[in-house]
Order: sequence, then C-alpha cells, then structure tokens
Amino acid sequence: MNATERATAAYTIVETSVHPRNHLAFLSQREVDGLIYHSDQGLYPLIRSCALAVLNSGLDSDDSLALFSQFSDFNLSFERHPRGLKLTLHNAPAHAFVDGDLIETVHDHLFTVLRDLIHVRQLQSNPGKPEGLQATNLVFQILRNAKVLESSRELACIVCWGGHSVNQEEYEYSKAVGRELGLRLFDICTGCGPGAMKGPMRGALYAHRRQGHTGRFIGISEPGIIAAEPPNGVVSDLVILPDIEKRLEAFVRIAHGIVIFPGGPGTFEELLYLVAILSDPRNSHDPLPVILTGPKSAEGLLNAYMDFIKLTLGPTTCERLEVIIDDPVRVAKRLTAAREHVRAHRMQVKDAYYYNWTLTIPQSLQAAFEPTHATMTALNLDLDQPKEQLAVALRCLFSGIVAGNVKPDVRQQIEVHGPFIVHGESTIIDAIDALLAQLISQKRMKIHGGYEPCYQLQSRQ
Amino acid sequence: MNATERATAAYTIVETSVHPRNHLAFLSQREVDGLIYHSDQGLYPLIRSCALAVLNSGLDSDDSLALFSQFSDFNLSFERHPRGLKLTLHNAPAHAFVDGDLIETVHDHLFTVLRDLIHVRQLQSNPGKPEGLQATNLVFQILRNAKVLESSRELACIVCWGGHSVNQEEYEYSKAVGRELGLRLFDICTGCGPGAMKGPMRGALYAHRRQGHTGRFIGISEPGIIAAEPPNGVVSDLVILPDIEKRLEAFVRIAHGIVIFPGGPGTFEELLYLVAILSDPRNSHDPLPVILTGPKSAEGLLNAYMDFIKLTLGPTTCERLEVIIDDPVRVAKRLTAAREHVRAHRMQVKDAYYYNWTLTIPQSLQAAFEPTHATMTALNLDLDQPKEQLAVALRCLFSGIVAGNVKPDVRQQIEVHGPFIVHGESTIIDAIDALLAQLISQKRMKIHGGYEPCYQLQSRQ
Amino acid sequence: MNATERATAAYTIVETSVHPRNHLAFLSQREVDGLIYHSDQGLYPLIRSCALAVLNSGLDSDDSLALFSQFSDFNLSFERHPRGLKLTLHNAPAHAFVDGDLIETVHDHLFTVLRDLIHVRQLQSNPGKPEGLQATNLVFQILRNAKVLESSRELACIVCWGGHSVNQEEYEYSKAVGRELGLRLFDICTGCGPGAMKGPMRGALYAHRRQGHTGRFIGISEPGIIAAEPPNGVVSDLVILPDIEKRLEAFVRIAHGIVIFPGGPGTFEELLYLVAILSDPRNSHDPLPVILTGPKSAEGLLNAYMDFIKLTLGPTTCERLEVIIDDPVRVAKRLTAAREHVRAHRMQVKDAYYYNWTLTIPQSLQAAFEPTHATMTALNLDLDQPKEQLAVALRCLFSGIVAGNVKPDVRQQIEVHGPFIVHGESTIIDAIDALLAQLISQKRMKIHGGYEPCYQLQSRQ
Amino acid sequence: MNATERATAAYTIVETSVHPRNHLAFLSQREVDGLIYHSDQGLYPLIRSCALAVLNSGLDSDDSLALFSQFSDFNLSFERHPRGLKLTLHNAPAHAFVDGDLIETVHDHLFTVLRDLIHVRQLQSNPGKPEGLQATNLVFQILRNAKVLESSRELACIVCWGGHSVNQEEYEYSKAVGRELGLRLFDICTGCGPGAMKGPMRGALYAHRRQGHTGRFIGISEPGIIAAEPPNGVVSDLVILPDIEKRLEAFVRIAHGIVIFPGGPGTFEELLYLVAILSDPRNSHDPLPVILTGPKSAEGLLNAYMDFIKLTLGPTTCERLEVIIDDPVRVAKRLTAAREHVRAHRMQVKDAYYYNWTLTIPQSLQAAFEPTHATMTALNLDLDQPKEQLAVALRCLFSGIVAGNVKPDVRQQIEVHGPFIVHGESTIIDAIDALLAQLISQKRMKIHGGYEPCYQLQSRQ
Repeated sequence: MNATERATAAYTIVETSVHPRNHLAFLSQREVDGLIYHSDQGLYPLIRSCALAVLNSGLDSDDSLALFSQFSDFNLSFERHPRGLKLTLHNAPAHAFVDGDLIETVHDHLFTVLRDLIHVRQLQSNPGKPEGLQATNLVFQILRNAKVLESSRELACIVCWGGHSVNQEEYEYSKAVGRELGLRLFDICTGCGPGAMKGPMRGALYAHRRQGHTGRFIGISEPGIIAAEPPNGVVSDLVILPDIEKRLEAFVRIAHGIVIFPGGPGTFEELLYLVAILSDPRNSHDPLPVILTGPKSAEGLLNAYMDFIKLTLGPTTCERLEVIIDDPVRVAKRLTAAREHVRAHRMQVKDAYYYNWTLTIPQSLQAAFEPTHATMTALNLDLDQPKEQLAVALRCLFSGIVAGNVKPDVRQQIEVHGPFIVHGESTIIDAIDALLAQLISQKRMKIHGGYEPCYQLQSRQ
Repeated sequence: MNATERATAAYTIVETSVHPRNHLAFLSQREVDGLIYHSDQGLYPLIRSCALAVLNSGLDSDDSLALFSQFSDFNLSFERHPRGLKLTLHNAPAHAFVDGDLIETVHDHLFTVLRDLIHVRQLQSNPGKPEGLQATNLVFQILRNAKVLESSRELACIVCWGGHSVNQEEYEYSKAVGRELGLRLFDICTGCGPGAMKGPMRGALYAHRRQGHTGRFIGISEPGIIAAEPPNGVVSDLVILPDIEKRLEAFVRIAHGIVIFPGGPGTFEELLYLVAILSDPRNSHDPLPVILTGPKSAEGLLNAYMDFIKLTLGPTTCERLEVIIDDPVRVAKRLTAAREHVRAHRMQVKDAYYYNWTLTIPQSLQAAFEPTHATMTALNLDLDQPKEQLAVALRCLFSGIVAGNVKPDVRQQIEVHGPFIVHGESTIIDAIDALLAQLISQKRMKIHGGYEPCYQLQSRQ
Repeated sequence: MNATERATAAYTIVETSVHPRNHLAFLSQREVDGLIYHSDQGLYPLIRSCALAVLNSGLDSDDSLALFSQFSDFNLSFERHPRGLKLTLHNAPAHAFVDGDLIETVHDHLFTVLRDLIHVRQLQSNPGKPEGLQATNLVFQILRNAKVLESSRELACIVCWGGHSVNQEEYEYSKAVGRELGLRLFDICTGCGPGAMKGPMRGALYAHRRQGHTGRFIGISEPGIIAAEPPNGVVSDLVILPDIEKRLEAFVRIAHGIVIFPGGPGTFEELLYLVAILSDPRNSHDPLPVILTGPKSAEGLLNAYMDFIKLTLGPTTCERLEVIIDDPVRVAKRLTAAREHVRAHRMQVKDAYYYNWTLTIPQSLQAAFEPTHATMTALNLDLDQPKEQLAVALRCLFSGIVAGNVKPDVRQQIEVHGPFIVHGESTIIDAIDALLAQLISQKRMKIHGGYEPCYQLQSRQ
Repeated sequence: MNATERATAAYTIVETSVHPRNHLAFLSQREVDGLIYHSDQGLYPLIRSCALAVLNSGLDSDDSLALFSQFSDFNLSFERHPRGLKLTLHNAPAHAFVDGDLIETVHDHLFTVLRDLIHVRQLQSNPGKPEGLQATNLVFQILRNAKVLESSRELACIVCWGGHSVNQEEYEYSKAVGRELGLRLFDICTGCGPGAMKGPMRGALYAHRRQGHTGRFIGISEPGIIAAEPPNGVVSDLVILPDIEKRLEAFVRIAHGIVIFPGGPGTFEELLYLVAILSDPRNSHDPLPVILTGPKSAEGLLNAYMDFIKLTLGPTTCERLEVIIDDPVRVAKRLTAAREHVRAHRMQVKDAYYYNWTLTIPQSLQAAFEPTHATMTALNLDLDQPKEQLAVALRCLFSGIVAGNVKPDVRQQIEVHGPFIVHGESTIIDAIDALLAQLISQKRMKIHGGYEPCYQLQSRQ
C-alpha cells in the first residue's frame, strides 16, 4: 500500500493538537482571540480550506478536489496557551501523520496558512482592492513576512511554470532541469503542486544534497488554487498570496529567471501574463531571462507557443523568449550567464536584488478578470492596438478558457448560455484556433475523455 | 590611552557607509523613500540622536550628554541599494570603529534604531496616544518585532534595575548577582546603560561562557533616555520603545523576575511603579518575584526603601518584595524557585510565557505624568485612598523630583518659580523627607557637589 | 544529453587543484611527505583507483569498470600548502565537475579516500592481518575516525542490502521503503552503489526533507569493490574499509536493523554471512532485527532464500529473519518497534548504542576466503556439523560463485581448469541447485546474455 | 559570600555521575577497559590530579595547592555505558557545580583531561622520550586531536605570557590588551591560570561579544603545572601536553604572535626559551612578532628584561623583541600588521598556517633540564659561545631558580646542601644579579614575606 492508496482510503485522525513554532509562537492576545472567536467571519472558511490542502501536501493525485470531498468533517479549533496558541485538528487526513505525529513540513505549512491569512487581513484593514504601487507593496510585505526574500545566496531564484499534469517524459525532463539548476545552487520557485511544479524541485533537492547545499523550494499559491494544487512534498517555503493577480506578481518580482515547461491553457495564460509585461516598452531594459524548454517530444508544442506570439504580438516580442529543446545543461548555463546581467541591471538602477521593484506591471494585469459571456465577448482582439494591450486581452481570453474548463460556477453559466463567443481579427482568431487545436489533440485541455470546447471563435471582417 | 580617553578626544570618522543585515535588509521602496527624503519630519531628529547614542555605546562616562555635544556635526544620509539600503555616517565618533570598521554590535544597534523608530511610526499611523489594551498591544508588537520575546530558554528573563552611577562595591556586587544568574542560564534585561545596568550583564556574560551558553542581554530604552544612557558594551538586543511609560510596561510584561539594586530617586521611581502595580488587588495572584538586593554597605538604603513603603502603603505591600543582603547565590536560587511558580501561574491562567498579558497596569501608570508646579502640588498624598492610587501618586512625586534634578526645561521652571511645593498627610511627608534625606547624604541625588532640593515638603493637618 | 551520456563521452578536465577541508586540512609534515614522495609504494595505486571511483560517483551505469577504462590517463599529485595540502587532479572525469568546480560531495569523498587509506596504514603499522577483537577494534577505529558513529539520533542506523542491478519495480519498492524509514528519521547505510543500495537513500532523502531532518546516508565500501560500485549521488558519508571482511563486520556492528532486498548471489552471500552470525549460540540474545522484503513480484525469490536456509540450517535459524512482502509501512513500523528491544538489550549488557561490541563474529568469518579449485572442493557441506559452521561454509560457497562470475583472475582459472567442483550431502546440494536455478532464470547471475555456470555440484552418498 | 569563599569552605558533592559528549563519547572497549581496570598503573594518578585541577577551574586563588589539599578524598571511577562511558566523581569540590549540575566548561575540561592523557599514552606506546621532529610531531598530534588547530579565523592565535600573580593595575592592563586583540578578532592562548593568563582572555571575551564573534581561549597546560594553575573561567579549549618542554613547544608553534606581560622568574624563563629560539641563525627569517608590554609602572621591569638580554646576548637579539609601554591599541595594531608578514612567510616556505613546522627548536630546548646542585654549577655562562647556546644555558639557570623557589623536592635539596652555586663570566653574573635584585625588590620572587635566595652567584676571572 503506497501513500496515495492510503490517502484514498480517507482514514482520518480523530483529534490531535499542535503548537506553532518560531514566528507564530508569538501572537498577541488580540490575534489569538480573533482565531478563537471566529471574530473575522470570512477568515475561518479560508483557513479551513487552506489547512485541509496542506494536510494533503505530498500527495500525488490527478484529482485533489475529489479527494478533499472525503474530508468534509474536517475542522480546526483554537485555544490560548502559554506557548502562544494551541491548534486542534479534528478528523484530519491520516496521511499527514507518521505514527501519530504530523509530518514536520506539513506542520510548518499549517502555520504558514495562519501566518499569511492573518497577515493579509492586517495589511488590508482598509477595504478596497489595492492597485499599482499599493499592490506591489502588499505583495512585498507578504513575501518579506514569509521570509522568502532572504536566501543563503542572492539572485538565485528561478521560477518554473508548466503543467500540473504532464507525462512521465516531461516530468523526468523537468527533474533533469532542476538537477542542473540545483548543481549551480539555484533555488526553485513554483506554483506548489505536482507535475512540472514538482519535477524541478525533486531534481534540485538531489543536486543540492550533492553540493552540500540547503537550498529553498518556494511554493507560491493562493486560497482558490491551493486546494486543486496542494504543496508537493519538496516545498520548503510556502506562501499564500490573497488572489491570482498577486500570486502572478509575486512570481515575476521575486524571479531572477523564469523557465516555462510545456503545459495546457493555464501555463499559456501565465506565459501571456509574462509576455504582456515584457512587451511593455517601459520594461525593455530589464534583462529577466525567460526560457521555454522541454524534451524533444514537446518541441512541437513549444514552437506552437512561439508561433502564436509571433503572429499576434510580432517577432520583437519573441526575442524576449528563448526556446531550448532537450538540453537541461544549456538551460542552466544560460540562466547562470543571465544572472550577471540581472545583477548589473539591478546595480545600475539601484533596484533590490531580492525584489524587482522597477519592473512595470500594467494595472490591467493587476486587476482581476472576471470571465463572463459579456466580458469574454467584449475582449478587443484586434492587431491595431499597442501590443502590450493586446497581450493583456489575450491573457484574459486564456484565463476565461481555463475557467470555462474547470471552474464550477463558470461551467454552469456555459451550460445555461452556451459557449463564450469570442470575436477578433482573423489573423488572431486563426492563431488562437491553431494553438487550441494542438492543446486539444495533445489532451492538454482535458486529460480524460473527449473535450467539449467552452468557447466559439468568430473572425471579424 | 583607554577607550574613554580616546572618546573624549572626540576624533571622528569623516564618512563611512554601512549596510543593514537580516530584517532591515528587506525594506520596501516606500520605507526607503521615507528615509531618503525625510518625508516624516519628526523622524529624522529622533534617528540622529538615537544613532549618535548607539555610536557611543560601550563607553563608560558619567556625563554622556557632555560627550555628545562634541559630535554636533554628526549626521546620516540614506541611499537606495541593491542590498536594500545604504546608510552613510558623517563625522561619526571614532571609538565606534576598529581600524576603520564599525564594531559589529554597534552596527546592529544602528539598524535597531531604524527598525524600531520606523516600526513604531507604522504602528501608530493614527494619531493619539494609545492606552489600556491598545498600549499593551503596541508594546507587544514592538518587542515581537525586535525578536526579544524569542529565547533559547523560556521563562528566563530577569529584569535588573538600579543606579547608573554606583560605587565600585555595588558594581562588583551587581556583577556577582549577574554571575550567579548566568550560571543558572538566566537572560538579563536592563535599561541599557552603565552601573547596575551593566554589572549584571558583565557577570552573566562570563557565566554563560562557562556554561557554554549564548544568553541574551536585552537593553530597553527610549529616545529621551538613550542619549543619557547609551547601551553598554554587553547589550546584545536593543529595543527602543516610544516613551517612558511604554518602556516601563515592556520591563514588567517581559520579566519573569525583577531584581532591584540600590539607586537614587530614578530607581526608587521604578520601584514605586512596580509597587503600584503589585498593590492593585487585580494582580494579587500574579507570582512575579521581586528582590531588592545589595552588598552589606547598602543594607541601610534598602531598608529605608522598605520602611518608606511600609509607612505609606502598609506591610501587606511589603510582602510582595524580598530583601536579600550580600548573598548573590541566594538571589539566584530564589529566582530559580520562583520560576516554577511563574510557570504554574501562566499555565493556569493560560497566559503566554513570553509576555505577561494578564498583569493589570492601572491606566494612570500608562499615561505620562508631566511634572509642573501645578501637577506636583495637586498630587494627592493622603493615606485615605486605595493604596494603588497612593502608589501611583508617590511614583509621580519621585518622577517629578528626578525631572527637577536633571531635566533642563524643568530645572528652568524651578529657577523661575522656586521649588515644587508638595502637600501631604504628615505620615507620608515625614516618610518622604526621611528617605530623601538619606538619598542626599549618600550622594545619590547629585554625584558631585552639594545638592539643592528642587522640592519643598508641607504636611497637612 | 543527460549525465550518463556525458560521462560515456569521457570528457576530462586536464588539470585542477583542490584543497582538503576539516580534518584532512591538518596533516603533519610526515603525512604530507608520505603522499608527496609516494614513500608508501602500495598506497598510491589504491588512492588512484578509489579516487577515480569517487570521481564517477552519482553515475548510473551497469558497467562502471568499462567506464573507468576510459580514464587510463587519470592521476593525482600532491603538494605542501599553507592550508595543509594541495591535491592536483590530472585528466579527471568531466562529470565530477559543474562549470569547472568539483561537486561538493565528490570533493568530500575524494578526501575521505585519503583519510581512510592513510588512517588504515597508520593503524596497521605492524604487519599481519588482525583477527578477533583486534579486527573488531580496527573496524571501530576506522568508523570512529570517519565520524559515522556520531549521529543526530541514536539507534537510527538501518543497513540495507540488495542487488546493485535491479528492475524498475524493485528499485521503486526500495525507494518506498526508504521513504517510510526516512519519515521515521532513520539513517540509511548501504554498500554505496546503485540499485537497491541507492533506492532507500533516495526515498529517505525526500522523507527527511519532509521532516525537516538532515539524516545521514552512509556508504561503506572497500578498495576492491568501490570501482565496481562507485558512491551513488546521495551518499553523504563514505567510509572505505580495508577489505571485504572488515566491510561486512562494519555493516553488522553499526546496524540497529537490517533490510535485505532481492538480489543475486552477492546479496545471498551477505545474507549467509549474517545467518552464520545469528545462528551462533553466543548471539542468541541479540535482538538485531533482519527483514527480507520486496514487491509482490519478488515474493518467489525471497521465499526461495528462506526455503534454502530452512533446508540447510533448519527452521530455528529462519526465526531470526522476517519476510514482509509489498508493505513498506510495515517494514518501517517493525524496525521502529524493534529499536526499543535493541535499546533495552544494549542497556542491559552495557554495550554501546553506536557499535555492537557484544555480537560475536566467528573468526572464520573475519578471515578472508580465497576461492580456488582446491578451497571450493574442500568446503564441508554436510549437515552433520554445528549449523554456524555450515553457514560459514555456505557463505564461502556463494563467495566463490560470485568471484567465478565476475572476478577476472578467478574467471581465468576456470577457463583453464573448468568449473569449480563442489561436493556435499544431497539435501544441501539439491537446495543449492534449486536456488541457483532460480537466480539463473531471473537473470540475477548475469544480466545480459546466457549464463555459463562456473561451478559443478556433486552430491555425496 | 563569593565563589572563592565558598571554595575555601571545601564543601564537596558526595557522588555524581557524568557522561562524555562528542569525541570521548566514542571509546573502544579496550579504551574503556583501560580506564575501568586501571590497567595503566601510572595513568590513574595523573587523571585524578588533573581532574581535581579542572574541578577547581575558575577559582581565583593565590594558593591552589593549599586548596587542593582539602580534597584528599576526591576520586573517580569509570563504568561502561551504552552512551560510551560513565564517570563517577566522589567528593568533588562543590564549587564546580551549580545547583547540583557540573558547570559545562568544567564538564568539558574533565573529558579533555581523559582525552589528552589517553591519547598521549597511545601515541607514546614505545618507551623513550621523543626528540627533534618526533617531539614536534607528537605536539602536533596532540594539538590536532584537541582540535585547537582549527579556528574560525586563520592566523589568529596570539600567545600571552606573564605572571600568574600580578597587581590590579597590571591585570587591568592585560585585560585592555585582550580587549583590543579581541576587537580585531584574535584568539588568545595562555598557560591557563590566573593573572596575566586570565586578563587577556577576559578582555577578549567582552570584545568578541561586541564583535558578534565566538573566539577561542586556548589554555595549554601540563600535568605538573595544572594543579598550581587550574584553568581560569574563560578557557574554552584546554590541552594538556605531557611535559613542560612540549608545552613550550606547543606555544611557539601554534602562535602567530606572542605578547609578554611583566612577571617573575617563570615568565623570564619563558622569554629566554623564546630568545634561545629566535637567536638561532636558522630562524632568522621567521617573522614571528614578539611584544613586551605593560602599564607605565612596569616600564622599569621590561627595560630590565631588555637590558639583561642586550648585555648577555647582544643588541641583535633585542631587535627580535619590541617593547610597547601603556598602549594596548598599538600592541594590537602591530600584531595585525605582523600577521601579514607571517602569512607571506608561511606562503613562501609552504609552511602550514596552523602550525609553524619550519621554526627550528634546538634539541637542548626540547630536552628536560633537571636542576640539581651539580647541573646548576655546570651551566656554562660564558660569553664566548654561540649566543643561542648561551641563551639555552640562561634559560636553564632561571628554570633552576624557579624550581628552587617553589618545587618541594628541590627546596629540600637546598635546605640540606645550601643554595645553588652558579659560576659565570662577570658581565653575565652582574647582569643576572641586577635583574634578580629587581625581581626581589618588586616582590616577584616571593609574594608574601621576605625572600631568601636559593642561589649564590660567583663571577669567574
């Protein structure tokens, strides 16, 4: 019986108590009271769902959500204690424990959830969504408080994006890239979950051990995503940002290099977010390296990504991206070389090594996009506009498609009103169509069974 | 030529740059800008004077203020830097450096000043002095941020109070007490400066070394006091509270035991602050141990302290205090034993080990007392009132006398209007008179030259 | 291009210099001179071959020996240096380096080779092979000097034996066992190489990370074996014992539990070594747990092991062994429980936790067995003898078969004189025949191509 | 009651058990048996007397020997234990304990005694005193095993010599020098005891704390001296060399600089040992800095030292020494500057940073000098000989005078046969006479009461 099988059996531990360590061990009376009396009504459900997610960390499952439904009677209660706080778990998943004790990193992640959710509430005491520098500051304060800005090695954070559900070959390839990055003492930062988010960390863990180095494996998540992508077993530093836009901003401001592995529409949405930033003329001098890479078998998909960007946003934008096929050593060497350019640039503009303040993120990217039939149809997909605006629109499009594929409430709208209608210039619509066709044929839109599109593309004359 | 002599010569280092480490290395753009552009008008002078104080740390001088006047052209400037912040010192005292490099703890204290002053501004963004639980929370947040609540050993913080200008015998005695406390792995917390604030730390430093222990030497100060009592050379953790009342509250809430050495009116004011708390019926169950101790030669003074308290506040109050003469081992053993009562009490009332939340501090003690001829005369020094109120009034009286002795603006008032007139019931007035007479005769009111009283006592019929 | 492919290409680094750290950084003049001037004629070739092996550590290869032949021009030279010693490598394998720098653990292993080989020479200054307590002392001194007796957790060393060339399923199973052991904070000790020697370490590395634990991965080798089984990439602590018998003694004296995975004749030889010790009446009270385990598909082989032992040495001997099929959690829980018996036993007989002094190893097991046609034919394989003696003889038999399969000089003898002739009682000969037949059919005698037996079995009447 | 007073009362702890940590926790059966069964007859008395000395460490006493006589019923016994060894102390001095537990460094020193005494026995298994390179190797091996060659900072070891019984001014001065050395991160190495052996360590301890540095305080002793000079409370690393000559050799080979404070004939003997080495032509290129320093009041004595050397060994020898009066900062700056010459020299001759192998120590200095009437009279004190030989003879002379002053067996000889008769050329005899007269008048020959010379000086024509 392996770990996954045990999990599926949904054994639970009826009751167990844990105490925070370090930072969280020092709560004020007010903070403890807030937890005990659920004085913040919206907070408890968030804590519960994030806590359940981290109690399932390390589990390889295609369908975490189904898994979670088995733990419907899970809950937590809080108590004041001389060592700060006592947290009692009721009906927690048994696989988070070894012989009755919580696994250490699960224990840490549990208090990470409290730390970040409480901290965000304190920072956002005044209502209204922060934007611009205010949002950038909020992201900074959360990362600083999570201590992920501190590293034993400066300029070492490589962000890796890619599918959470990839085949064995792509998984092994992502491990090989992680190994070469780890041998060069890079830290790895991903979106927390399995697949291409786990592979680079596993590879780097082994490589760091060979180098006698204790590196960091930062997982950046947010409350809506963590349940679907609970932390893999290698994540050493978990951070929970308040929403998707802050999470994406955290990735790009903390990164000293970005590696993109093959993935489905979600990965492509992330790539478009990045492209929208890089194509902004105000960022033309920032040397952040971005590498698209995969094994030989993924060459077609990565080329399709690039073709799409060339057709819609032009070849100049493509120059900010580099494609490397089947060569983990080259990926790692390129990032090692680029690191010196990043250092020189930060030095020149006096920007911090640990946070890319000077990168401009368009406010339209910082704002949330709510996909509805109306907003999807309203997207401006014409070539005749600044390319960073087009990039933002394209990112919204793919964001809507992801939501239409997986988010329950959006799926329901589509069942009622039919697929989203998307208008655009024919060049763009054709490019979208070609890319989506490839994603469908490669089973990257839906893993099991046939795919029923949630969108309908219409070219404008 | 010893360190003091070099200092007196007032050599300065024309210009030198330093960078923060750890926490302060991760400032937000907004925080850095605030420093660079002096956007907060009141902040810079505070930073400058506290910084100058810590640059004089480790110096033994009876008259720091005179010393500081030599560094009138000292200032600091700030610059953004990839490693967070660059701080440039102009005309800093040479004795803070060794062969051109800042002494490490001075370097740390320098950024402690920035940390605490900036942090307090952020916490107190809304105007108005905090009181009650709000003040208690503020003190907690400052101490937590300064990481002084974390210790390698719980329930180990002994607060030591006493004169900053004591004779050699009393200094050696305070070292001996520190040695015995250190052998039992207690941390020492004092008001930062020389004399009885330094002795226990020196003794414990040696003892910790013998025990292979790295203990902590916490210095708690505030902007108005630090210049007169710069950190001695042993202080490992400096914290700067925003004012005198918060500083006193920090002492009593962080303490697991308090030792009071002989001192002048300032020390006695601190003792009265403590007595005012302990005589509050709401604190009758709190087992905080308080020990008055000194060498044989100080027996008279310590008995005078006790006599005064018995005469004014009654024998019950005295039971909360213990006098131990010339026996450092017994002091340490008593605190070791009392530690278990503190532990049991905190466990029972579920209060934190690291911060005494349940101790009640009367709001009149949290509010500042402004000594003027009017407020001094208005003090109610009658026996016919709750003794905790009388204790507060007596504490205000001694606070006023200290100010009348040393604070330039108060002294000027007295020169113009004559001494403060203090009314009270004859029992109390006589007790005050007796104690002050002894302080005067022992040169504890004024070290050099004859003492001219700043007060005039009048018994009521 | 992955790591293995790069290695096959046999790129080398022409010249590079390295310095020792820690212990080896403090050599005496005499020790340095011994290295520089090759004053010890037999030492240099040993150093060279072991050094070449560790420079190939982390490489997955079925045929290390073929690989090594590519580095025939590899050598090392030594020089005195203010930091103790300078070691220059000539034509070292490129895969030991990352961007020109030696991988840290390879660097460490390189100086481990020097440490152990020099130390053994110093300890064995008087000629003659040590035996009995003298051998036990020698093994102890080598392990102590290698600091592998020190652990962050006492009684935590699990020795894992098994094939170096196993199929994917068995490899994954050994990882799963390692993961469960690692979650319970056990250290792993193996024979250094790939396959079942690597799997448990990989699994435990991941599990230790999850537990926030830095565990140890001890690889125990000897000069004749290390070239065929260079340290895998997870080994953190390498020790090189002087010969096979000392290596086996090191395993059993350092172990607090032993896990045996499926393997070929070499693994079975190790099992017989252990059985010969456990069947000695003097060891009947020692509670050392021994578990044979593997996935479902290996059940047949493990049962064949047990059948053989039952037929030849009797059912009582089998009681010292436990077979667990396809249940890593159960393996780990059994070892956790057995640990308390080991603790109680050591406490009772006042034996050290870190080294099993009281276990008796028959002198015949401490002496080397030289397989020749004469010694193989002379083996006494009759039932009518103490079973520990029969166990020793059977161990010699399998040792001879392993040598006849792979050792060049032994193979040559067999080509000249034909297979070894082995006599024995029919019960025993039949049991041997049955077991070897299964090993042959499972391709565990020879991985590629058909197997030509190096032995001929003859039953006595 | 201070620590010394408690000691004098000679309270003892009837029985207590302790366990080794680290290295000594891993003893072989043979080593443990050797301790349990006192198999080495000469070893136990040495262990007992050194153990008693370290149990008195940290005690300030002019007369340790008298103190020790109070603990005549102290002894130790040994037992095998799962954690290696159990050591039981019977009637140990109470002042080594705090509330029943051994002070940590005392605990460490106790096992240091075992470590060094056992190790030396193992190294010197063949009889006969080692000489020349063999002695140098032995000293090296003892220091390496004691881990005192390893430092967090290379080339940082300053050896301080001086009187164990100095006045307050000289003690404070030695503290001031230690403080300045400590601020520059130098380690301090002395002969273990009080006075000028303790002052520099106390000063550096405080300074290291100010620099956030954990430096080392090495005490080098030998079985015959440790009882008279038990480790002061700051010694962090104790090493016990087998005899006086090895102890002196350890000092000069480990030193990167030597500071000599004022002292009596013992200190002057050490200075002559050093001068005998430095005046050897083979050492003319070694840049080891030697500084004689003291407060203003010691200027006369230090000049007398120098005058004596100039008169007997010539001005060239004096050039190897530097006198600095009343300027701790200058002492520290000189040693900082000299450190670079030491580094350059070691680099050039490829000598180790951690041990001065290339310094030549004349064999006559490595051999023990046994002071008797015959050997004292036989000393050649003529100018007409190589000055390094004369230096050796003068060192023997002062060694004899020290013995005649304090060693019981030598004093008895003198009572029987009268004072030693010393012959020599008049220039030399006059110089000796002048220096001794000054030592007598300054009470440095005998602290209390009048001094009765143990020698009689006779000029040859």
